[in-house]
Amino acid sequence: MIDTRPVVHAIAKLAVGMGALMLAPAVVDWVHGDPTWQVFAVTAAATITLGTMVAIATRHHDATMIVEQAFLLTAGLWLVLPLVGAVPIRAALPGTSWTDAVFEAMSGMSTTGATAYPRLDALSLGLHLWRGILQWSGGLGIVVVAMVFLPVMRVGGMQFFRSEGFDTMGKAMPRANAIAAEMTQLYLAITVACAATYAALGMGGFDAVMHALTTCSTGGFGRYDASFGPFTGSPQVASTVFMLLASIPFMRMLQALHGDVGPLLRDSQIRGYLGTALVLCVLIMLYLALWQGVPPSPGLLREVSFNVVTIMSGTGYASVDVTMWGHLPFVLLIAAGLIGGCTGSTVCSIKVFRYQVLFQALRAQLAQLQSPSRVSLLRLQGRRLDPEVVNSVMAFFTLFVITFGVLIVALALTGLHARTALTAAWTAIANVGPAWGPEVTANGSVAAFPAPAKWLMIGGMYLGRLELITVLVVLMPRFWRQ
Amino acid sequence: MIDTRPVVHAIAKLAVGMGALMLAPAVVDWVHGDPTWQVFAVTAAATITLGTMVAIATRHHDATMIVEQAFLLTAGLWLVLPLVGAVPIRAALPGTSWTDAVFEAMSGMSTTGATAYPRLDALSLGLHLWRGILQWSGGLGIVVVAMVFLPVMRVGGMQFFRSEGFDTMGKAMPRANAIAAEMTQLYLAITVACAATYAALGMGGFDAVMHALTTCSTGGFGRYDASFGPFTGSPQVASTVFMLLASIPFMRMLQALHGDVGPLLRDSQIRGYLGTALVLCVLIMLYLALWQGVPPSPGLLREVSFNVVTIMSGTGYASVDVTMWGHLPFVLLIAAGLIGGCTGSTVCSIKVFRYQVLFQALRAQLAQLQSPSRVSLLRLQGRRLDPEVVNSVMAFFTLFVITFGVLIVALALTGLHARTALTAAWTAIANVGPAWGPEVTANGSVAAFPAPAKWLMIGGMYLGRLELITVLVVLMPRFWRQ
Ligand SMILES: [K+]
Ligand SMILES: [K+]
Repeated sequence: MIDTRPVVHAIAKLAVGMGALMLAPAVVDWVHGDPTWQVFAVTAAATITLGTMVAIATRHHDATMIVEQAFLLTAGLWLVLPLVGAVPIRAALPGTSWTDAVFEAMSGMSTTGATAYPRLDALSLGLHLWRGILQWSGGLGIVVVAMVFLPVMRVGGMQFFRSEGFDTMGKAMPRANAIAAEMTQLYLAITVACAATYAALGMGGFDAVMHALTTCSTGGFGRYDASFGPFTGSPQVASTVFMLLASIPFMRMLQALHGDVGPLLRDSQIRGYLGTALVLCVLIMLYLALWQGVPPSPGLLREVSFNVVTIMSGTGYASVDVTMWGHLPFVLLIAAGLIGGCTGSTVCSIKVFRYQVLFQALRAQLAQLQSPSRVSLLRLQGRRLDPEVVNSVMAFFTLFVITFGVLIVALALTGLHARTALTAAWTAIANVGPAWGPEVTANGSVAAFPAPAKWLMIGGMYLGRLELITVLVVLMPRFWRQ
Repeated sequence: MIDTRPVVHAIAKLAVGMGALMLAPAVVDWVHGDPTWQVFAVTAAATITLGTMVAIATRHHDATMIVEQAFLLTAGLWLVLPLVGAVPIRAALPGTSWTDAVFEAMSGMSTTGATAYPRLDALSLGLHLWRGILQWSGGLGIVVVAMVFLPVMRVGGMQFFRSEGFDTMGKAMPRANAIAAEMTQLYLAITVACAATYAALGMGGFDAVMHALTTCSTGGFGRYDASFGPFTGSPQVASTVFMLLASIPFMRMLQALHGDVGPLLRDSQIRGYLGTALVLCVLIMLYLALWQGVPPSPGLLREVSFNVVTIMSGTGYASVDVTMWGHLPFVLLIAAGLIGGCTGSTVCSIKVFRYQVLFQALRAQLAQLQSPSRVSLLRLQGRRLDPEVVNSVMAFFTLFVITFGVLIVALALTGLHARTALTAAWTAIANVGPAWGPEVTANGSVAAFPAPAKWLMIGGMYLGRLELITVLVVLMPRFWRQ
């Protein structure tokens, strides 16, 4: 049996941090004279008290963690914190069910951005801020996990990035704190820059902060039922830039800030990502011009690039009804969501790195089939690709596809339309945000979905956010027997 | 440069055989006084003459083949024979375009069963017989290839079955002829039994033969616009049985006929296949009873099992509009098509064996992530699963999923509705048959698709039938350089 004490301790400490963050919406609602401030104040106090008690009860001396504990911590964090985050959501608005509250909190912490609210303008400013904070802290959490834990846990080929982080768990923890601190500063700086830009381009102060929180986490919660619709124009361009920034590896940005700009400029994953986004924009512009008779214009380019980047980065803002563009753009956007951004960013989905590994592996396999004696050395980013990394990526891809398929079937089982089941499974497992189909309300919410479908999506968001394998390892009986 | 002479010689000989088979529709149309007999007679004569000339020109003494030649032969056969088979189709009915003729012939030889004819009753009996013969010979071809070539070519994990066939190409050829002869006899016997059963259950003589040809090849070409609709009742049950028979490994049936029934009864793939089909039937029956208020009845069970087996075996007959059953059954049927039948049968798609390998590999990977020192030995059907087989299966799965995705995007690019693009890509790559969407005509044909979409489907059927990898190996420049 593994020692769960350090894990519970770490989760409790982070829950206390979350309780502290609840004070922000409490203050906002109090300033605006909204009685919801009491909900946030009480939940904050309760969370901080309870979290502190648990943290003290599980205090320990050994700061190192073994791999099993890392798995449990990662899987535990995204289970406990969304439940904590759901408490004020449940209490803030009368009539909110636990299902919807947990859905909203999980959609926040997993940076998915799908909402269970049929009308967003019924929410207090504090509640909106809380949704933004959930996404922002979820995004920060995943960047740190992707840098510190996933490579050591060897999940989905992330061991390729091990040398960039840490070699062993023992060495990891002290340096992890340093890296996490630097990451947090960078993430905070990008968010402040984003909010300042939004404000400079005409957004109101609160809107600028709220949308910066959900842009830089590629979360995509909006404050309005029309999502990003009210901010057509230059804020869209700014949003596109910041979404792109949030979906490239944070380590590369840190390296650049430390004076080493080369890795950022030479990174084949970043090139692949930007290249794919560009190709998708060009294809959609061409399709609109040639098939739909919509002449290219700067405004159209802005809309197309915004929508391609918002889906591909998994942010999920909406500015127009993309289904009106025709079937090809729709299919391309679904494909974009299944590609995703770069590893080591806030983006979920399969990610460009894994496709690059898969293509290399397939090429080598084809070459080897034909000359069995030949041994191909795979290379990526100028480094050797270990067979273990390739196997791990292939296993991840297989698992992703099969889970996606099972989720579609399970959602259809709840009675959803096939189109809704497909896009809801897609939005959940790839943490994108929007879904399309007859059951989706006008503001794009899942409010009208049956409760089992919402719970399936909660599970899908959780699995997708934690790269599936993290969760499955913890769920195996063997994990608990040792 | 590999020696292409033996390959061209083998293809030419089989083309001569195909020319000889054209005499059957010639006779049928001549007996029925349909002038189309001349088309078949002339094409038969031309094919036999031309094929014989090429065969003589490429005569050679060495009967052994190296692996490269096996790749080229397999890829070449399904390219040349459909083109030969398209000639009488192009000429038999005025106004048939080359696109439609090649589509119909490729859909036949690949045992897909999608049709390009908007109305099937305009076709002569000979032409119907020719469509049936195309599927039947395509099915026979793939059973032989799956037994003789794929294991040696190590395509998609088929090397797992190497010991059941042959170890090296050198030893393979003499024994290949013996096995191919036995396979042909078994296949013929099943077809005759199927035709006799159909006739005994009330089908007309011609219909019984035509549908036996397309049942036992899991091809699914029908003679009527309502597909299998006119044969509701006991012929459906017979068809279900024969489709199941045609989608289990032929090698197991041969072994049983040689007195060794154990392998057939113990085969985990056959169990997995029948079990999955059973679960799908139960789920759909439950859904219809609980959500749609359709009470279970023997007639309903017959319809449901017929439609599950026709899709899962990749036959693709239709008897009812399955989209009327609701969204869950539709999604389940799409999933069934992506599972498919067993290896070593006439079925295309991913196949049960590969899913079993994938699940074993994923389980081992999860166990290993958690205890890195642990080495798991994978087993299937009581035998050790070589890592090479696992990698090969994972590569196949990855390639299948990516090709499927690219095909959906490409089909959407031709202007098709997203639903049509999805189901047409599915039907092409998994060689199933039906597609659904606004562009699909009342008889389920692709007649109204734009020509580029038809060519994309032709490519998809070809790739899917040859397990993708066979084609890609031949397409690599390195293949031709050596
Ligand atoms: K999102
Ligand atoms: K078929």
